[in-house]
Amino acid sequence: MRFARRGPAGAEIPVVETSDAVFDLRPLTADIDGAFLAGDGIARTRAALDAGTLPRLDDAGLRVGAPIVAPGKIVCIGLNYRDHAEETGAALPAEPVVFMKDPSTVVGPYDDVRIPRRSVKTDWEVELGVVIGREARYLESADDALAHVAGYVVSHDVSEREFQLERGGQWDKGKSCETFNPLGPVLVTADEVADPQRLGMRLSVNGTMRQDGSTATMIFPVAHVIWYLSQFMVLRPGDLINTGTPAGVALGLPGTPYLREGDVVELEIDGLGSARQRMVQA
Amino acid sequence: MRFARRGPAGAEIPVVETSDAVFDLRPLTADIDGAFLAGDGIARTRAALDAGTLPRLDDAGLRVGAPIVAPGKIVCIGLNYRDHAEETGAALPAEPVVFMKDPSTVVGPYDDVRIPRRSVKTDWEVELGVVIGREARYLESADDALAHVAGYVVSHDVSEREFQLERGGQWDKGKSCETFNPLGPVLVTADEVADPQRLGMRLSVNGTMRQDGSTATMIFPVAHVIWYLSQFMVLRPGDLINTGTPAGVALGLPGTPYLREGDVVELEIDGLGSARQRMVQA
Repeated sequence: MRFARRGPAGAEIPVVETSDAVFDLRPLTADIDGAFLAGDGIARTRAALDAGTLPRLDDAGLRVGAPIVAPGKIVCIGLNYRDHAEETGAALPAEPVVFMKDPSTVVGPYDDVRIPRRSVKTDWEVELGVVIGREARYLESADDALAHVAGYVVSHDVSEREFQLERGGQWDKGKSCETFNPLGPVLVTADEVADPQRLGMRLSVNGTMRQDGSTATMIFPVAHVIWYLSQFMVLRPGDLINTGTPAGVALGLPGTPYLREGDVVELEIDGLGSARQRMVQA
Repeated sequence: MRFARRGPAGAEIPVVETSDAVFDLRPLTADIDGAFLAGDGIARTRAALDAGTLPRLDDAGLRVGAPIVAPGKIVCIGLNYRDHAEETGAALPAEPVVFMKDPSTVVGPYDDVRIPRRSVKTDWEVELGVVIGREARYLESADDALAHVAGYVVSHDVSEREFQLERGGQWDKGKSCETFNPLGPVLVTADEVADPQRLGMRLSVNGTMRQDGSTATMIFPVAHVIWYLSQFMVLRPGDLINTGTPAGVALGLPGTPYLREGDVVELEIDGLGSARQRMVQA
């Protein structure tokens, strides 16, 4: 199934999309959040669809929101693609590099992204987003880690490289600017993603292809990342994991063509849909 | 005023404490969260107290919870006391070092702290916690930054040094373990803290004083930190800032006496109360 949210920011209507219609989920839940996912929301939605008890929603003209409400946390994996680690000049990590992002950076997939004031190095990163559906705490192995996934989503881990790398200390400073995590358009449930390690992903800026990779080249695959993170923190329903980006970011390109006001970024992942954001000045 | 929460984890009752009684805040709000703080909750509480419309709560036997619900984000300032930076062997930061902590690590001030599995370097850090009351976004200067503070709280930024420093990448990995942010006992409103840069703070382990500092020796004072952070991210009502720890952590002590099962940590900050946690094995 494909979950989504429609309507003004902060007042989105939770919906489920089928091939021929959009259904209003409000008879089942006020929002697509951790409580919904933890409380068998996916199974209850399937049952309601089968029983025909959900009303259709006419979503013409409604904004497309992020498909989940602001997560409890956003955990990000850095340098998780060999080619991206190389383009940044970083050594290949021996174990996952972990950082965090302000959960309030989540915006809809077609919302504007604000280039921070005094930013000169705002950069793009298309990433496979993983939404947790079941608590993961000290998992024994990676073997059953994917059972903790509610679904997958296109995530844009917008990054300010000067803030991240040249302003002292840790990366989080360049990752948590306002609007820096466009998400969606849809949360595709895990049962509909046959293999999360075989997903092509692409990102273009003003029509020029910049990233053209595949989750097949992740250094640490999704199951390993979930198992690994669960040794250090509790992953809870509704949490979002950004699993890293392939090569092709501005930081690694000749001339470092960082994002400027008016630029348009388009990104997509096989089976998860596409997103498009315009850069505006904060 | 002194806000607090009483009752089982996840089902706390919001209260306000006066010198002679505890009052139930549920006629005003379901919880002490960002919406309450943003919606003039402090002023409405004062008015209700003055009008005598809040019922008393008999809190005998009730657990003391964290005084706010899980924040939207926890932003931490690293190496913000000269003596602590020196004991860790780090250079003095030229601008604030920023990292983040999983908001779900917040527990009550007397709850057990779980030493992570495979941890050998779990460490303590008493910190002045700052709770945001009004959105801060690109503040012009530090001069009016404190107007964005709802109040102050004793915060324990528990840290696993091996996870933080020896496992590759960023610090967040050693800061977000389950139960790693005991908070409270009370949120003291900003009007009752005459000067946040003149607060003595102490931490002992099994009765031995380990940290005995003052916010007077912060490298970047609270107002500067809020102004600075607002250039990189939006601080929202209910967010928590951990402003750094003075010298005396296990990492910097002879013999590095890291925390072990059964150890008892007691911490306090002038005017903000005291807390006490027992270490248990996760």
